[in-house]
Amino acid sequence: MIPDLQSIKAAHALIRPFIHQTPVMTSRMLNEITGADLHFKCENFQRCGAFKMRGATHAVLRLGKKDSENGVATHSSGNHAQALALAARSHTIKAYIVMPENAPEVKVAGVKEYGAEIIFCKPTLEARESTLERVVEETGAAFIHPFNNYRVIEGQATAALELLEQAGSFDCVLAPVGGGGLLSGTSLSVKYSSPQTEVIGCEPEGADDAFRSFHSGKIVPSLHPDTIADGLLTSLGPKTFGIIQKHVDDILPVADQVTIRAMKLVWERMKIVIEPSAAVPLAVVLSNKERFIGKKTGIILSGGNVDLSKLPF
Amino acid sequence: MIPDLQSIKAAHALIRPFIHQTPVMTSRMLNEITGADLHFKCENFQRCGAFKMRGATHAVLRLGKKDSENGVATHSSGNHAQALALAARSHTIKAYIVMPENAPEVKVAGVKEYGAEIIFCKPTLEARESTLERVVEETGAAFIHPFNNYRVIEGQATAALELLEQAGSFDCVLAPVGGGGLLSGTSLSVKYSSPQTEVIGCEPEGADDAFRSFHSGKIVPSLHPDTIADGLLTSLGPKTFGIIQKHVDDILPVADQVTIRAMKLVWERMKIVIEPSAAVPLAVVLSNKERFIGKKTGIILSGGNVDLSKLPF
Repeated sequence: MIPDLQSIKAAHALIRPFIHQTPVMTSRMLNEITGADLHFKCENFQRCGAFKMRGATHAVLRLGKKDSENGVATHSSGNHAQALALAARSHTIKAYIVMPENAPEVKVAGVKEYGAEIIFCKPTLEARESTLERVVEETGAAFIHPFNNYRVIEGQATAALELLEQAGSFDCVLAPVGGGGLLSGTSLSVKYSSPQTEVIGCEPEGADDAFRSFHSGKIVPSLHPDTIADGLLTSLGPKTFGIIQKHVDDILPVADQVTIRAMKLVWERMKIVIEPSAAVPLAVVLSNKERFIGKKTGIILSGGNVDLSKLPF
Repeated sequence: MIPDLQSIKAAHALIRPFIHQTPVMTSRMLNEITGADLHFKCENFQRCGAFKMRGATHAVLRLGKKDSENGVATHSSGNHAQALALAARSHTIKAYIVMPENAPEVKVAGVKEYGAEIIFCKPTLEARESTLERVVEETGAAFIHPFNNYRVIEGQATAALELLEQAGSFDCVLAPVGGGGLLSGTSLSVKYSSPQTEVIGCEPEGADDAFRSFHSGKIVPSLHPDTIADGLLTSLGPKTFGIIQKHVDDILPVADQVTIRAMKLVWERMKIVIEPSAAVPLAVVLSNKERFIGKKTGIILSGGNVDLSKLPF
């Protein structure tokens, strides 16, 4: 069932002891550059360095003793893998993470650091899914999907819930969209409390499945996604798409070039480290200035996990 | 006259409307790595990206109408130049900044952005001083020394004053030392309120004039300073040295290699951008672990102005 405001608030109460209430930052310089009134919800400061900690923690906490006794499992080479590994460890639950054999060393090390068991597979979606299926069968672990899971969506929704508590109501709220866990959760939290606030999904042009799905009314996956925003390569799932269709006002694609500029602006002007995916909403503002001029705009900075030896600028 | 607690508090009240009260951050990961209880005062989030904004603002505000009618002047290629330019502009005072002709483009652009007049000179200390003398003579501008000035020291002292207000008392407080404005101000604020707290100056091995001066009892300038910490190349002045001799407990030099590691740790684990000079105190903790284990340790992160295209890692 699609989460309601009460279930999102319950999720927040449940996960609060295990996550950070991240700060909301503003920047005079970025307001001058964009003409908008920007408020950044800094999930780059979240535990594990990304909002994913919210959804993973909530999913683990809601499993119950019996369902979690054989552990949890997922496939991911990104932030969800680390977040699930840490959330599981915090509750002394075993975690199995299926990762492609070409996953970056730094991500593998992160998952290992949190004590999860890693199962490598060929770097295709088929191999990931079949390997996960085998792991679940052999271990009895509970599969925690990175986004197509209402418990996960409720967790991600708490970032926007906090943003509204911390900074009041907004003219519009922007979140990046990959699989849609963050965007769908954000849209629920915003629309339940403030229906007149616009919610906009921000997507790289090179992985614009949400844009195409939104406009065609059915899921159109990205077959060969190509973008610097490595957290946004995934396509929507049925659960996130359903919510996005109903509660999101628009999806705006943006060129990687502008995302790189936005990322550098945040590093230079705000002195914080964000990953490329987190820079996509500011890139959307820079590419559509007239639309945001004078508007109080919330931006979810989704994460800050970036390989410092491979910067795009 | 050496500032007393009352004059530092007065400075704080005076500059407060023009500066940010920067946050104090902690990091579970860095506490695990060091074994210490670290509290970071984030002056990288200060206006202009460095604590220098405090001292420059205070010096400008204390000039009075008559002394400031011909503007202010300084020589600096670093954060003081930008801070003085911005502080002057905020009070519609003209600023003249003497900069070496080989100053980085990005710093020159920063000073220009704040509307200051730049006077270029040969890149030697003699040329800087003689050019400044000429500018002061021709314009009647008031010279604001970057550190050897009690109004500036009072301003820099407000960072530690806020740290104690925000996070309570400490076992020790660490600040980087170049010309000594920040360290001397920090030592005054800390010792006036909490005499038992250790104050430690942190210095690059390649520019260890403060270490040598501290131990020999007289100013021993660094003749050929060589360090990645470009904000700490300067040597102590008589005013800062006097305070440091009296109120600082120790000066610890550290290798650039460790500073680079510390800088990267802060970027990766805390997700904030700091400049090399700001990483020197954490490098000192990493190099002297046993000394800080279990100790509540305050660290002034002095600034975050770094050329993203020339990172040392």
